[in-house]
Amino acid sequence: MDECHMQINLHSLALSYRDGQVWVLDQQALPLEEIWLQCHTIDDMCAMIKALKVRGAPLIGIAAVLALMQYVKQGATVAEIKAAAAKLVATRPTAVNLKNYMDTILQQLTDDTNVVFTIGQELFLEDVQLCENMANHGLALIPPHAKLMTYCNTGSLATTGIGTALGVIKHAYRHQKVQHVYACETRPLLQGGRLTAWELVKADIPHTLICDNMAAMVMQQGKIDAVLVGADRIGKNGDVANKIGTYSLAVLARHHQIPFYVVAPYTTLDAQCRTGKDIEIELRHADEVKGALGKISWAPLQTQVYNPAFDITPAELVTAYILDVGIFSHTNLAESGLLTC
Amino acid sequence: MDECHMQINLHSLALSYRDGQVWVLDQQALPLEEIWLQCHTIDDMCAMIKALKVRGAPLIGIAAVLALMQYVKQGATVAEIKAAAAKLVATRPTAVNLKNYMDTILQQLTDDTNVVFTIGQELFLEDVQLCENMANHGLALIPPHAKLMTYCNTGSLATTGIGTALGVIKHAYRHQKVQHVYACETRPLLQGGRLTAWELVKADIPHTLICDNMAAMVMQQGKIDAVLVGADRIGKNGDVANKIGTYSLAVLARHHQIPFYVVAPYTTLDAQCRTGKDIEIELRHADEVKGALGKISWAPLQTQVYNPAFDITPAELVTAYILDVGIFSHTNLAESGLLTC
Repeated sequence: MDECHMQINLHSLALSYRDGQVWVLDQQALPLEEIWLQCHTIDDMCAMIKALKVRGAPLIGIAAVLALMQYVKQGATVAEIKAAAAKLVATRPTAVNLKNYMDTILQQLTDDTNVVFTIGQELFLEDVQLCENMANHGLALIPPHAKLMTYCNTGSLATTGIGTALGVIKHAYRHQKVQHVYACETRPLLQGGRLTAWELVKADIPHTLICDNMAAMVMQQGKIDAVLVGADRIGKNGDVANKIGTYSLAVLARHHQIPFYVVAPYTTLDAQCRTGKDIEIELRHADEVKGALGKISWAPLQTQVYNPAFDITPAELVTAYILDVGIFSHTNLAESGLLTC
Repeated sequence: MDECHMQINLHSLALSYRDGQVWVLDQQALPLEEIWLQCHTIDDMCAMIKALKVRGAPLIGIAAVLALMQYVKQGATVAEIKAAAAKLVATRPTAVNLKNYMDTILQQLTDDTNVVFTIGQELFLEDVQLCENMANHGLALIPPHAKLMTYCNTGSLATTGIGTALGVIKHAYRHQKVQHVYACETRPLLQGGRLTAWELVKADIPHTLICDNMAAMVMQQGKIDAVLVGADRIGKNGDVANKIGTYSLAVLARHHQIPFYVVAPYTTLDAQCRTGKDIEIELRHADEVKGALGKISWAPLQTQVYNPAFDITPAELVTAYILDVGIFSHTNLAESGLLTC
């Protein structure tokens, strides 16, 4: 083991790699409790990802990268690293960043497994920079005194930087362009009501929490100038997989003639996916819908549930894609070469 | 006191008037517990209505009627009855059935307060019949093997009969026309996840519970042939006040070219309301959105909330109104004379 790799320390709001150990801020406990969980093994990380203790498409990818770094430090062989990467990719099927990051590492993996440290550190720090780039590009699309709507959590709890959609919002707020933010609670796991609200409080940004079914009324009242959402996977034709409820907001925004922006880094693009139809949508447990956060249950035992974790927004409902490399319409995204295999 | 009035007994799934006493099935405790609460006074009933222990536009109206009957039995004077009616009307501003029922009683009130028993009994039994009539009319609009979406609770927990929108669904199911029902959970108070699911289990109707933000995806997948909702108030131009989230479903149904039906008795019509703009929308407590059912809380203390209990669906998004007197488009509803002062 090269001693210099012992000294890599990487910290974000929700992830930490220090002294070769991986720590995760438990996002299921937020905002009521701030608990850091130590991740000892690949299986630990798989369990944390599945349980959404770490979530957000870019952050899941980086969390898996850190778990691999720790595994190398624990002495994993090339074969073991490959098996671990496959196991990590299988935890959640919809977000592509995780798969992209694992592919990046496996493609460069040599008999000297120390390369994982170099790549891992690069990916972690790159994600911070990608967020800055998206925020800078997005700023141009935010009108003065903007009233913005956002969905799920796409901030510093979803990336290692300031975020994707919420990153644009926070950056625009610092530039005095944001008057108010409407955060949708995002049932069933309430990432909006718990995590985005928490980040907005921390950033001291004036905001209002609403139930997802109130978004249409707020738009009808003329309270929204733009909707900004993140993405879990963007296909070649510009179709967007994102948190369940995103498609609903896209339709509502179109009806009310409100711009609908998808904010994502290049790591969310999937050149192997032709359209949204190719994207596997993760189905989760009925208990998430029949109650809240595993703490309360209200629906009859006999009642069946449909609980897709994501939906597909067709490209034609996206006003623009705010990527780290610039702003694109769905037609010039397809022509950009960004989504070439 | 005329002895014959002592013998009036009225029972529905969620209300009971027996031996001059009023009982309410606590709809906040459903479906986990079936608790009947005794209502001793007008103030008791006001508190129960405000706390949504009794809810549903028609049922609130009838509950208030029963409270007045009990008050008369307790010896209330004409002046006291008038004051009680005003207090009851003030509990919840949006649904008009309550006001319509109180007006009906006050208009016929004489020095012989026993008239309240006669009218009260008539209104209770009339609501049962109105439901049957809506169900019979609505049946014609349900296609064979129908996959239907409904919202909030509009069944036997919202009326003294089989219900409005859910009444049509249950009736159509008995006629072998319904293949499946999608029930939206209806945040924040989860009347769909708790009450409609409970009624669908009782009626043995195949059903699936979804979060409100999943409705668009289910429509996109072609799983819905029609959306049926109730109403809390219908204005002269056909605008509909109903549970928050109804407008969202109406926009989504239009986008997916799915018929959107509003089912209501004449007691929900408000001839004094020109358009939806005239309807006062009740705003409720932030805690309802920052948690669930008073049992769990998840949002930061500092986060502000917007919690309108209802929204307004413009008439042009309503495919048809299924009323007790027949089926109407919004243009022939306006011309029908049903909404004449």
